[in-house]
Amino acid sequence: MNLLKERIISEGRVLPGNILKVDGFLNHRVDMSLMREMADEFKKLFDISDITAVLTVEASGIPLASICAADWNVPLLFAKKAKSDNIEGGLYKSDIYSYTYRKNVTLLMSMQWLSSTDKVLIVDDFLANGEALRGLVDIVNQAGAELIGIGIAVEKGFQPGGKSFRDAGQNLISLAIIDEMDESHIKFR
Amino acid sequence: MNLLKERIISEGRVLPGNILKVDGFLNHRVDMSLMREMADEFKKLFDISDITAVLTVEASGIPLASICAADWNVPLLFAKKAKSDNIEGGLYKSDIYSYTYRKNVTLLMSMQWLSSTDKVLIVDDFLANGEALRGLVDIVNQAGAELIGIGIAVEKGFQPGGKSFRDAGQNLISLAIIDEMDESHIKFR
Repeated sequence: MNLLKERIISEGRVLPGNILKVDGFLNHRVDMSLMREMADEFKKLFDISDITAVLTVEASGIPLASICAADWNVPLLFAKKAKSDNIEGGLYKSDIYSYTYRKNVTLLMSMQWLSSTDKVLIVDDFLANGEALRGLVDIVNQAGAELIGIGIAVEKGFQPGGKSFRDAGQNLISLAIIDEMDESHIKFR
Repeated sequence: MNLLKERIISEGRVLPGNILKVDGFLNHRVDMSLMREMADEFKKLFDISDITAVLTVEASGIPLASICAADWNVPLLFAKKAKSDNIEGGLYKSDIYSYTYRKNVTLLMSMQWLSSTDKVLIVDDFLANGEALRGLVDIVNQAGAELIGIGIAVEKGFQPGGKSFRDAGQNLISLAIIDEMDESHIKFR
Protein backbone atom coordinates (compact mmCIF):
# COMPACT_ATOMS: atom_id res chain seq x y z
CA MET A 1 0.00 0.00 0.00
CA ASN A 2 1.82 3.05 -1.29
CA LEU A 3 0.33 5.55 1.14
CA LEU A 4 1.64 3.54 4.09
CA LYS A 5 5.05 2.97 2.52
CA GLU A 6 5.39 6.70 1.84
CA ARG A 7 4.64 7.48 5.48
CA ILE A 8 7.19 4.91 6.64
CA ILE A 9 9.82 6.44 4.34
CA SER A 10 9.07 10.04 5.27
CA GLU A 11 8.41 9.66 9.02
CA GLY A 12 9.85 6.33 10.13
CA ARG A 13 13.22 6.03 11.78
CA VAL A 14 15.34 2.93 12.20
CA LEU A 15 16.89 2.57 15.65
CA PRO A 16 19.55 0.12 16.83
CA GLY A 17 18.15 -3.35 17.51
CA ASN A 18 16.05 -3.55 14.34
CA ILE A 19 13.47 -1.17 15.78
CA LEU A 20 11.36 0.74 13.27
CA LYS A 21 10.00 3.79 15.00
CA VAL A 22 6.71 4.83 13.44
CA ASP A 23 5.08 6.12 16.59
CA GLY A 24 4.11 9.42 14.96
CA PHE A 25 1.34 7.80 12.93
CA LEU A 26 0.92 4.13 13.87
CA ASN A 27 1.36 3.20 17.51
CA HIS A 28 1.58 6.13 19.93
CA ARG A 29 0.23 9.15 18.07
CA VAL A 30 -2.12 7.50 15.58
CA ASP A 31 -3.28 9.00 12.31
CA MET A 32 -6.82 7.65 12.24
CA SER A 33 -7.38 8.77 8.64
CA LEU A 34 -4.49 6.50 7.63
CA MET A 35 -6.00 3.70 9.76
CA ARG A 36 -9.25 4.17 7.85
CA GLU A 37 -7.41 3.99 4.50
CA MET A 38 -5.82 0.74 5.67
CA ALA A 39 -9.19 -0.63 6.73
CA ASP A 40 -10.51 0.17 3.24
CA GLU A 41 -7.51 -1.64 1.74
CA PHE A 42 -8.12 -4.74 3.87
CA LYS A 43 -11.74 -4.67 2.72
CA LYS A 44 -10.52 -5.01 -0.87
CA LEU A 45 -7.97 -7.71 -0.07
CA PHE A 46 -10.07 -10.01 2.12
CA ASP A 47 -13.57 -11.37 1.76
CA ILE A 48 -15.05 -9.79 4.86
CA SER A 49 -18.68 -10.32 3.85
CA ASP A 50 -19.19 -13.13 6.36
CA ILE A 51 -16.90 -12.20 9.22
CA THR A 52 -18.42 -11.98 12.68
CA ALA A 53 -15.56 -10.16 14.42
CA VAL A 54 -12.21 -8.42 14.04
CA LEU A 55 -9.65 -9.85 16.46
CA THR A 56 -6.51 -8.15 17.75
CA VAL A 57 -4.40 -8.01 20.88
CA GLU A 58 -3.85 -5.10 23.21
CA ALA A 59 -2.59 -2.48 22.86
CA SER A 60 -1.12 -1.01 19.69
CA GLY A 61 -3.21 -3.06 17.27
CA ILE A 62 -6.44 -1.70 18.72
CA PRO A 63 -6.75 1.62 16.82
CA LEU A 64 -6.49 -0.06 13.41
CA ALA A 65 -8.68 -2.99 14.43
CA SER A 66 -11.25 -0.60 15.93
CA ILE A 67 -11.76 1.34 12.73
CA CYS A 68 -11.95 -1.92 10.74
CA ALA A 69 -14.66 -3.23 13.07
CA ALA A 70 -16.51 0.09 13.14
CA ASP A 71 -16.55 0.55 9.38
CA TRP A 72 -17.45 -3.10 8.71
CA ASN A 73 -20.19 -3.22 11.38
CA VAL A 74 -18.81 -6.15 13.35
CA PRO A 75 -17.60 -6.30 16.95
CA LEU A 76 -13.98 -5.79 17.88
CA LEU A 77 -12.40 -8.49 20.04
CA PHE A 78 -9.11 -7.80 21.74
CA ALA A 79 -7.11 -10.42 23.60
CA LYS A 80 -5.65 -9.23 26.89
CA LYS A 81 -2.07 -9.69 27.92
CA ALA A 82 -2.20 -10.19 31.68
CA LYS A 83 -4.54 -11.55 34.28
CA SER A 84 -6.56 -8.70 35.69
CA ASP A 85 -9.35 -8.73 38.26
CA ASN A 86 -11.83 -7.93 35.53
CA ILE A 87 -11.53 -11.28 33.78
CA GLU A 88 -13.11 -14.35 35.30
CA GLY A 89 -12.64 -17.99 34.42
CA GLY A 90 -13.65 -19.55 31.12
CA LEU A 91 -10.68 -18.32 29.17
CA TYR A 92 -8.74 -19.33 26.11
CA LYS A 93 -5.07 -18.89 26.97
CA SER A 94 -1.97 -18.85 24.83
CA ASP A 95 1.57 -18.31 26.09
CA ILE A 96 3.83 -16.17 23.95
CA TYR A 97 7.19 -14.49 24.31
CA SER A 98 7.06 -10.71 24.05
CA TYR A 99 10.21 -9.34 22.42
CA THR A 100 9.01 -5.83 23.20
CA TYR A 101 8.85 -6.48 26.94
CA ARG A 102 11.40 -9.32 26.96
CA LYS A 103 9.25 -11.67 29.00
CA ASN A 104 6.64 -14.36 28.65
CA VAL A 105 3.09 -13.13 28.40
CA THR A 106 -0.19 -15.04 28.39
CA LEU A 107 -2.83 -13.90 25.92
CA LEU A 108 -6.34 -14.24 27.29
CA MET A 109 -9.73 -14.27 25.60
CA SER A 110 -13.03 -14.98 27.31
CA MET A 111 -14.68 -18.11 25.91
CA GLN A 112 -17.94 -16.23 26.07
CA TRP A 113 -17.00 -13.98 23.15
CA LEU A 114 -15.43 -16.37 20.65
CA SER A 115 -16.85 -19.72 19.59
CA SER A 116 -17.02 -22.22 16.73
CA THR A 117 -19.69 -20.19 14.97
CA ASP A 118 -17.34 -17.21 14.55
CA LYS A 119 -15.48 -16.20 11.40
CA VAL A 120 -12.72 -13.78 12.27
CA LEU A 121 -10.20 -11.56 10.59
CA ILE A 122 -7.12 -10.93 12.70
CA VAL A 123 -5.72 -7.39 12.40
CA ASP A 124 -2.51 -6.10 13.94
CA ASP A 125 -0.15 -3.18 13.45
CA PHE A 126 3.17 -5.05 13.35
CA LEU A 127 4.47 -8.50 12.46
CA ALA A 128 8.08 -9.39 13.24
CA ASN A 129 8.75 -12.68 15.00
CA GLY A 130 5.05 -13.42 15.02
CA GLU A 131 4.69 -14.38 18.66
CA ALA A 132 1.59 -12.27 19.33
CA LEU A 133 0.05 -13.49 16.09
CA ARG A 134 0.84 -17.11 16.96
CA GLY A 135 -1.07 -16.59 20.20
CA LEU A 136 -4.06 -15.08 18.42
CA VAL A 137 -4.20 -17.91 15.86
CA ASP A 138 -3.92 -20.40 18.71
CA ILE A 139 -6.90 -18.77 20.44
CA VAL A 140 -8.96 -18.87 17.22
CA ASN A 141 -8.12 -22.58 16.90
CA GLN A 142 -8.97 -23.29 20.54
CA ALA A 143 -12.36 -21.67 19.95
CA GLY A 144 -12.90 -23.75 16.80
CA ALA A 145 -13.62 -20.50 14.99
CA GLU A 146 -12.85 -19.96 11.31
CA LEU A 147 -9.87 -17.75 10.49
CA ILE A 148 -10.69 -15.81 7.32
CA GLY A 149 -7.34 -14.07 7.16
CA ILE A 150 -4.68 -12.01 8.84
CA GLY A 151 -4.25 -8.34 7.96
CA ILE A 152 -1.04 -6.64 9.08
CA ALA A 153 0.01 -3.02 8.63
CA VAL A 154 3.82 -3.34 8.74
CA GLU A 155 5.73 -6.61 8.42
CA LYS A 156 9.43 -6.91 9.04
CA GLY A 157 10.07 -9.38 6.25
CA PHE A 158 13.60 -10.11 7.44
CA GLN A 159 12.23 -11.62 10.65
CA PRO A 160 10.62 -15.06 10.61
CA GLY A 161 6.97 -14.38 11.48
CA GLY A 162 5.51 -13.70 8.05
CA LYS A 163 7.17 -16.67 6.35
CA SER A 164 6.06 -19.10 9.06
CA PHE A 165 2.39 -18.16 8.71
CA ARG A 166 2.48 -18.19 4.91
CA ASP A 167 4.25 -21.56 4.92
CA ALA A 168 1.48 -22.82 7.19
CA GLY A 169 -1.06 -21.78 4.55
CA GLN A 170 -2.53 -18.81 6.37
CA ASN A 171 -4.08 -16.06 4.29
CA LEU A 172 -1.70 -13.39 5.59
CA ILE A 173 -1.47 -10.01 3.87
CA SER A 174 0.77 -7.17 5.04
CA LEU A 175 0.28 -3.69 3.62
CA ALA A 176 4.00 -2.92 3.80
CA ILE A 177 6.74 -5.57 3.97
CA ILE A 178 10.21 -4.33 4.82
CA ASP A 179 12.97 -6.62 3.53
CA GLU A 180 15.94 -4.52 4.56
CA MET A 181 16.40 -1.53 6.80
CA ASP A 182 19.14 0.43 8.48
CA GLU A 183 19.62 4.03 9.52
CA SER A 184 20.08 5.22 5.93
CA HIS A 185 17.53 3.22 3.94
CA ILE A 186 14.37 1.13 4.06
CA LYS A 187 13.72 -1.37 1.27
CA PHE A 188 10.24 -2.79 0.70
CA ARG A 189 9.44 -6.16 -0.86
CA MET B 1 -26.89 8.54 27.82
CA ASN B 2 -29.84 6.17 27.81
CA LEU B 3 -28.49 3.78 25.18
CA LEU B 4 -25.42 3.09 27.30
CA LYS B 5 -27.39 2.78 30.53
CA GLU B 6 -29.75 0.29 28.89
CA ARG B 7 -26.80 -1.84 27.78
CA ILE B 8 -25.30 -1.75 31.27
CA ILE B 9 -28.64 -2.84 32.76
CA SER B 10 -29.29 -5.58 30.23
CA GLU B 11 -25.76 -6.98 29.81
CA GLY B 12 -23.68 -5.79 32.76
CA ARG B 13 -23.01 -7.97 35.77
CA VAL B 14 -21.80 -6.92 39.18
CA LEU B 15 -19.09 -9.14 40.62
CA PRO B 16 -17.66 -9.20 44.15
CA GLY B 17 -15.14 -6.40 44.76
CA ASN B 18 -17.20 -3.65 43.11
CA ILE B 19 -16.39 -4.96 39.65
CA LEU B 20 -18.85 -4.08 36.90
CA LYS B 21 -18.41 -6.58 34.13
CA VAL B 22 -19.35 -5.00 30.81
CA ASP B 23 -16.82 -6.86 28.70
CA GLY B 24 -19.44 -7.96 26.18
CA PHE B 25 -19.72 -4.48 24.69
CA LEU B 26 -17.14 -2.12 26.22
CA ASN B 27 -13.74 -3.55 27.02
CA HIS B 28 -13.06 -7.02 25.64
CA ARG B 29 -15.67 -7.62 22.95
CA VAL B 30 -16.41 -4.06 21.86
CA ASP B 31 -19.60 -2.91 20.13
CA MET B 32 -18.12 -0.30 17.82
CA SER B 33 -21.55 1.03 16.82
CA LEU B 34 -22.14 1.88 20.48
CA MET B 35 -18.67 3.47 20.62
CA ARG B 36 -19.66 5.61 17.64
CA GLU B 37 -22.90 6.66 19.36
CA MET B 38 -20.85 7.66 22.39
CA ALA B 39 -18.45 9.64 20.19
CA ASP B 40 -21.46 11.48 18.72
CA GLU B 41 -22.68 12.21 22.24
CA PHE B 42 -19.31 13.61 23.30
CA LYS B 43 -19.39 15.80 20.21
CA LYS B 44 -22.63 17.36 21.48
CA LEU B 45 -21.38 17.75 25.05
CA PHE B 46 -17.92 19.22 24.42
CA ASP B 47 -16.70 21.97 22.14
CA ILE B 48 -14.39 19.88 20.01
CA SER B 49 -14.06 22.43 17.20
CA ASP B 50 -10.51 23.40 18.22
CA ILE B 51 -9.09 20.20 19.64
CA THR B 52 -5.85 18.90 18.16
CA ALA B 53 -5.93 15.38 19.62
CA VAL B 54 -7.91 12.82 21.58
CA LEU B 55 -5.86 11.44 24.46
CA THR B 56 -6.37 8.11 26.23
CA VAL B 57 -4.30 5.41 27.91
CA GLU B 58 -3.78 1.84 26.82
CA ALA B 59 -5.59 -0.43 26.54
CA SER B 60 -9.33 -0.51 27.09
CA GLY B 61 -9.93 3.18 26.40
CA ILE B 62 -8.47 2.90 22.92
CA PRO B 63 -11.50 1.64 20.95
CA LEU B 64 -13.73 4.52 22.11
CA ALA B 65 -10.95 7.10 21.75
CA SER B 66 -10.09 5.75 18.28
CA ILE B 67 -13.56 6.24 16.90
CA CYS B 68 -13.74 9.72 18.46
CA ALA B 69 -10.46 10.68 16.81
CA ALA B 70 -11.41 9.08 13.48
CA ASP B 71 -14.82 10.73 13.29
CA TRP B 72 -13.49 14.12 14.42
CA ASN B 73 -10.47 14.05 12.09
CA VAL B 74 -7.82 14.52 14.76
CA PRO B 75 -4.99 12.22 15.83
CA LEU B 76 -5.36 9.70 18.64
CA LEU B 77 -2.70 9.82 21.36
CA PHE B 78 -2.43 6.95 23.77
CA ALA B 79 -0.18 6.96 26.81
CA LYS B 80 1.71 3.73 27.38
CA LYS B 81 1.85 1.87 30.64
CA ALA B 82 5.31 0.32 30.73
CA LYS B 83 8.77 1.00 29.41
CA SER B 84 9.24 -0.86 26.17
CA ASP B 85 12.15 -0.93 23.74
CA ASN B 86 10.09 1.05 21.28
CA ILE B 87 10.02 4.26 23.31
CA GLU B 88 13.14 6.40 23.53
CA GLY B 89 13.92 9.30 25.85
CA GLY B 90 12.08 12.59 25.89
CA LEU B 91 9.07 11.37 27.82
CA TYR B 92 6.42 12.83 30.03
CA LYS B 93 5.99 10.40 32.92
CA SER B 94 3.34 10.08 35.58
CA ASP B 95 3.25 7.43 38.28
CA ILE B 96 -0.13 5.98 39.14
CA TYR B 97 -1.46 3.03 41.11
CA SER B 98 -3.35 0.49 39.04
CA TYR B 99 -6.19 -1.06 41.03
CA THR B 100 -6.81 -3.47 38.16
CA TYR B 101 -3.29 -4.88 38.28
CA ARG B 102 -2.63 -4.00 41.94
CA LYS B 103 0.71 -2.38 41.30
CA ASN B 104 2.34 0.93 40.51
CA VAL B 105 2.48 1.80 36.84
CA THR B 106 4.19 4.66 35.05
CA LEU B 107 2.25 6.33 32.25
CA LEU B 108 4.49 7.44 29.40
CA MET B 109 3.95 9.87 26.55
CA SER B 110 6.57 11.00 24.09
CA MET B 111 7.24 14.74 24.33
CA GLN B 112 7.37 14.76 20.56
CA TRP B 113 3.62 14.24 20.24
CA LEU B 114 2.15 16.57 22.88
CA SER B 115 3.15 20.19 23.42
CA SER B 116 1.89 23.56 24.63
CA THR B 117 0.15 24.22 21.33
CA ASP B 118 -2.17 21.22 21.77
CA LYS B 119 -5.78 21.29 22.90
CA VAL B 120 -6.86 17.85 23.98
CA LEU B 121 -9.96 15.98 24.99
CA ILE B 122 -9.24 13.03 27.26
CA VAL B 123 -11.46 10.00 26.60
CA ASP B 124 -11.58 6.80 28.64
CA ASP B 125 -13.92 3.88 29.14
CA PHE B 126 -14.03 3.79 32.94
CA LEU B 127 -13.56 6.14 35.87
CA ALA B 128 -13.44 4.75 39.39
CA ASN B 129 -10.60 5.89 41.66
CA GLY B 130 -9.30 8.09 38.89
CA GLU B 131 -5.67 7.05 39.03
CA ALA B 132 -5.24 6.59 35.27
CA LEU B 133 -7.06 9.86 34.65
CA ARG B 134 -4.89 11.68 37.19
CA GLY B 135 -1.86 10.46 35.26
CA LEU B 136 -3.28 11.65 31.94
CA VAL B 137 -4.15 15.10 33.34
CA ASP B 138 -0.66 15.28 34.83
CA ILE B 139 0.84 14.55 31.41
CA VAL B 140 -1.31 17.23 29.76
CA ASN B 141 -0.12 19.71 32.42
CA GLN B 142 3.52 18.71 32.00
CA ALA B 143 3.17 19.39 28.28
CA GLY B 144 1.56 22.77 28.95
CA ALA B 145 -1.27 21.68 26.68
CA GLU B 146 -4.84 22.86 27.10
CA LEU B 147 -7.32 20.35 28.50
CA ILE B 148 -10.67 20.98 26.84
CA GLY B 149 -12.50 18.31 28.78
CA ILE B 150 -12.68 14.72 29.96
CA GLY B 151 -15.22 12.33 28.43
CA ILE B 152 -15.85 9.06 30.26
CA ALA B 153 -18.15 6.21 29.27
CA VAL B 154 -18.91 4.66 32.68
CA GLU B 155 -18.19 6.31 36.02
CA LYS B 156 -18.48 4.54 39.33
CA GLY B 157 -19.93 7.50 41.20
CA PHE B 158 -19.49 5.80 44.58
CA GLN B 159 -15.71 5.83 44.14
CA PRO B 160 -13.77 9.08 44.57
CA GLY B 161 -12.38 9.78 41.09
CA GLY B 162 -15.24 11.75 39.56
CA LYS B 163 -15.77 14.02 42.55
CA SER B 164 -12.08 14.86 42.82
CA PHE B 165 -11.84 16.02 39.19
CA ARG B 166 -15.10 17.99 39.35
CA ASP B 167 -14.03 19.63 42.63
CA ALA B 168 -10.79 20.62 40.88
CA GLY B 169 -12.85 22.40 38.22
CA GLN B 170 -12.28 19.96 35.37
CA ASN B 171 -14.90 19.74 32.65
CA LEU B 172 -15.61 16.06 33.28
CA ILE B 173 -18.66 14.41 31.73
CA SER B 174 -19.53 10.74 32.14
CA LEU B 175 -22.19 9.18 29.92
CA ALA B 176 -23.36 6.85 32.69
CA ILE B 177 -22.70 7.42 36.40
CA ILE B 178 -23.45 4.52 38.71
CA ASP B 179 -24.23 5.61 42.28
CA GLU B 180 -25.07 2.20 43.71
CA MET B 181 -24.65 -1.34 42.50
CA ASP B 182 -24.81 -4.87 43.78
CA GLU B 183 -25.68 -8.23 42.31
CA SER B 184 -29.38 -7.43 42.14
CA HIS B 185 -29.51 -3.80 41.04
CA ILE B 186 -27.65 -0.91 39.42
CA LYS B 187 -28.73 2.65 40.24
CA PHE B 188 -27.66 5.55 38.02
CA ARG B 189 -27.27 9.17 39.09
